[in-house]
Amino acid sequence: MRYEEFTIEGRNAVLEAFRSGKTIDKLFVLDGCHDGPVNTITREARKHDTIINYVSKERLEQLSKTGSHQGVIAYAAAYEYAQVADILEIAREKNEPPFIFILDNIEDPHNLGAIIRTANLAGAHGVIIPKRRAAGLTATVAKISAGALNYTPVAKVTNISNTIEELKKEGMWFVCADMEGEIMYSLNLKGAIGLVIGNEGSGVSRLVKEKCDYTASIPMKGDIDSLNASVAAGVMAYEIVRQRMDL
Amino acid sequence: MRYEEFTIEGRNAVLEAFRSGKTIDKLFVLDGCHDGPVNTITREARKHDTIINYVSKERLEQLSKTGSHQGVIAYAAAYEYAQVADILEIAREKNEPPFIFILDNIEDPHNLGAIIRTANLAGAHGVIIPKRRAAGLTATVAKISAGALNYTPVAKVTNISNTIEELKKEGMWFVCADMEGEIMYSLNLKGAIGLVIGNEGSGVSRLVKEKCDYTASIPMKGDIDSLNASVAAGVMAYEIVRQRMDL
Repeated sequence: MRYEEFTIEGRNAVLEAFRSGKTIDKLFVLDGCHDGPVNTITREARKHDTIINYVSKERLEQLSKTGSHQGVIAYAAAYEYAQVADILEIAREKNEPPFIFILDNIEDPHNLGAIIRTANLAGAHGVIIPKRRAAGLTATVAKISAGALNYTPVAKVTNISNTIEELKKEGMWFVCADMEGEIMYSLNLKGAIGLVIGNEGSGVSRLVKEKCDYTASIPMKGDIDSLNASVAAGVMAYEIVRQRMDL
Repeated sequence: MRYEEFTIEGRNAVLEAFRSGKTIDKLFVLDGCHDGPVNTITREARKHDTIINYVSKERLEQLSKTGSHQGVIAYAAAYEYAQVADILEIAREKNEPPFIFILDNIEDPHNLGAIIRTANLAGAHGVIIPKRRAAGLTATVAKISAGALNYTPVAKVTNISNTIEELKKEGMWFVCADMEGEIMYSLNLKGAIGLVIGNEGSGVSRLVKEKCDYTASIPMKGDIDSLNASVAAGVMAYEIVRQRMDL
């Protein structure tokens, strides 16, 4: 098990990390620092679609664990990210129609961890998250996932809408969880399905929602607005499980 | 009735507290913060003659117990624990067979808050927790419940087993969530039902399990052991909701 999230500090170390193919979730660079080595690093970062944050000296000092960051600190993923193709391959190997969770900007690492745990137990073949804004595979996520990260592949994509388009060509169809949708019990959720879960505050984004074949809602019989995102994901996922079991 | 001194933190939780008619003694707002949600809260506060204190970020951090106050902290006069009889009365008023969550030692305040939130939205009439060992109604629980604590009564009892015995005399029957149980989809979960959710680590205790009429399990199709307690509670609760909707 690789539970440890690590920060890489200093110019050589960060550059080496990129060149060795390590997945860097985030790069912090001293604002205004544009000398040769730093430019080489940011070029590598762009090549790998790593998010670059330009920050103040004070912020870097805060982030630094060694005290010798030389103007650059990288956050390496605690886990290896999979490719979307790997997830489809797992479904094929199991001879099952693909069942994939697509998380449209889950921000809370606790929710992300709990959802990966649910994905594993609901028999999903993998989880897809976006590169920007969303929570990545940090140590907290790994811990909350209760080991599920060791079994359930997580792929990071640049654009969720495009990925949905690609997967539709593979014969998958998509349902997103939204309060405006049809009650999930009355929808047919069988077959090769992608379950789209939105952001904790703002839900599924408009562009992603437009790509979905169905919008499903969980019946709300109470006084408040919505379920916790990881609970909602669990309730939806298990309606899919129930229908797949043909009960 | 038991009363506990209470701080409410975070925008949704504070706004919900006002709207549900709870008495707020004092409101602390981040000085200079005048965005939409904060203005809505201060308007509610004026309507209810609540004293508003504009304070610095440092002061708010000091007052905060959860670390995520989002610029607003409220001091509520008191939070009330309900009696089990109050919960039954609510079901009677709504002319519905009682649906009660019984939490056999949920220890994590995040789980307790999320479960109360789920109980509200699943249309349960109340939640019963034990007096000893378990998490109580703290500020964290109130925040995570996203306002549900203002609507869904929580009763604290000395002995869960005895309470189950008492409620059986009222015509209720009980199902506990346990991995050894029968798959929940094949059980009849209609009628006056108590859903028993166990401790995060050790599950439902032996004595409580013996009092239950059925043991139900959630199908586990993955590699790891169990769902997060609040996700499991949500999945079970919504199977009850589905059956109650006669779908």
